[in-house]
Amino acid sequence: MSGRVTVLTGGVGGAKLVLGLLQVCAPKNITAIVNTGDDFQHLGLSISPDIDTLLYTLSGKANKAQGWGREGETWTFMEALKSLAGEDWFLLGDGDMALHVLRPSLRASGQPLSGVTAHFAASWGLGLNMLPMSDDPVATHIMTDQGELRFQRYFVEQRCAPAVRAIRFAGAEAARPAPGVIDAIRDPETRTIVIAPSNPWLSIDPILAVPGIREALAAASAPVIAMSPIVGGQAVKGPTAKLMGELGLAISNEVIANQYAGIVDGLIVDERDGAEGLAIPHAVTDTLMKTLGDRVRVARAALDLALRLA
Amino acid sequence: MSGRVTVLTGGVGGAKLVLGLLQVCAPKNITAIVNTGDDFQHLGLSISPDIDTLLYTLSGKANKAQGWGREGETWTFMEALKSLAGEDWFLLGDGDMALHVLRPSLRASGQPLSGVTAHFAASWGLGLNMLPMSDDPVATHIMTDQGELRFQRYFVEQRCAPAVRAIRFAGAEAARPAPGVIDAIRDPETRTIVIAPSNPWLSIDPILAVPGIREALAAASAPVIAMSPIVGGQAVKGPTAKLMGELGLAISNEVIANQYAGIVDGLIVDERDGAEGLAIPHAVTDTLMKTLGDRVRVARAALDLALRLA
Repeated sequence: MSGRVTVLTGGVGGAKLVLGLLQVCAPKNITAIVNTGDDFQHLGLSISPDIDTLLYTLSGKANKAQGWGREGETWTFMEALKSLAGEDWFLLGDGDMALHVLRPSLRASGQPLSGVTAHFAASWGLGLNMLPMSDDPVATHIMTDQGELRFQRYFVEQRCAPAVRAIRFAGAEAARPAPGVIDAIRDPETRTIVIAPSNPWLSIDPILAVPGIREALAAASAPVIAMSPIVGGQAVKGPTAKLMGELGLAISNEVIANQYAGIVDGLIVDERDGAEGLAIPHAVTDTLMKTLGDRVRVARAALDLALRLA
Repeated sequence: MSGRVTVLTGGVGGAKLVLGLLQVCAPKNITAIVNTGDDFQHLGLSISPDIDTLLYTLSGKANKAQGWGREGETWTFMEALKSLAGEDWFLLGDGDMALHVLRPSLRASGQPLSGVTAHFAASWGLGLNMLPMSDDPVATHIMTDQGELRFQRYFVEQRCAPAVRAIRFAGAEAARPAPGVIDAIRDPETRTIVIAPSNPWLSIDPILAVPGIREALAAASAPVIAMSPIVGGQAVKGPTAKLMGELGLAISNEVIANQYAGIVDGLIVDERDGAEGLAIPHAVTDTLMKTLGDRVRVARAALDLALRLA
């Protein structure tokens, strides 16, 4: 595959897709633009859940069974923290702490989040370009029937139990795309732009809320292919289906296509759902990504559809 | 033993003495005033080596073999930190990180170091009063033949190799004794004030450099008993003997007595050195503290000498 590929991604599902892309494209030709709306400060540490998940997944360090954190993690810090009555609603593995401690330390020395992210990716031998959507803080806030919650409070502490009324991205209006983000979308060498099968409202919308990114996607010469997160009328994991219901949306690929209207040229849908009546150009495949082979198949489906639409 | 006991202490040696005192005095009657000149910020974390050593030793969590850190410690954080090219000259165990992360987090929420220290001690069921010498920053700087070094750079990174020319305590002139420090020295209920067998220049001098503490000791109604750190013409551990040589001092109890002149009423010396020619009131015992029984013996020797001098 020649040409460059740009991916907009959240955490777990997007990381699987990027891993698939890395099997079929040269790493240096891949740019991942990562959601940072879930980033938060906790106990003075800086946690970037989606960047961290990409770092762990792409370097082979991810815990495959639990879907977050590191394989072979230890929990000595957390036990000691509990013994000191420290806040324990967010689990911090001992190895995971290295990213969370070094990130604010490097930022305090003057490096932007993008520089820190590039340093981490390079330290672990990742050849792709991994960019936060912005070096400026953008915080996803969930308006629920139990009040407004920061994303991690909703997602981790409350386990997505509160009913969602609306979502806002605090700070987005003043945020600038991180260096390289707009270039990766506009670059004439970019042959395909992929929106990962991440949650459109929680993981992709924060990226689109950064001024300039939506406009760049709409004007991009490369086809923009979105991967639907719906499989068999449900979301694969996470709160997508529950959230769509609470927002009054049908759980269908039409709704996904509508959500991305104006920026997306094609949609990859799962074979369980089919594409009857879907007006947008599309391709149908098995989008479940359990094995590395699955990830390669799904990545190829996106690249092939882009080639067809170019 | 009735009455209150106040101890001025550094880390390892002092912690052993305090553990001995806890066997013969009610914990609530013991106040430990702890050196914070070695405290430093590292990777955004707040490390108080002497307070931490007391917390671990008195709660039974200390690693007995290595003399610092926790028993059963794990090192997953440190391995991950190295993989990210983080600074690795100072070893941070996974469990140890809980104190270092929570301390700045609680301080950022408005608690002074003394409040944080009391919270940690109470969380681990320690009944004594553990006070930092000051809530204000005081930093021990070592002037060496290789330039001026922060204490941990000299002690840990350089392993005390540079020759010491002088020592200064940055910030001391503006520091105030932590709440309770002066009271613990002046309190008419205080029957004995003990200076632990810590390094007089590196661990006790920073405490004495906080304005008001030396004066309070000189004026105290309770006898002030210093424990000599010299055993058999050498220091038990750490850089005391090397440092004394570099400062042009003989390694003798006369020098120790002279160092504490004006504030100390009596000296506990080791039986290997004896006390011939020692002008200050003194008692002789085996001051090596290998077992809990040793610690009790040494603690009793200090209390007995104070009783004799009262």
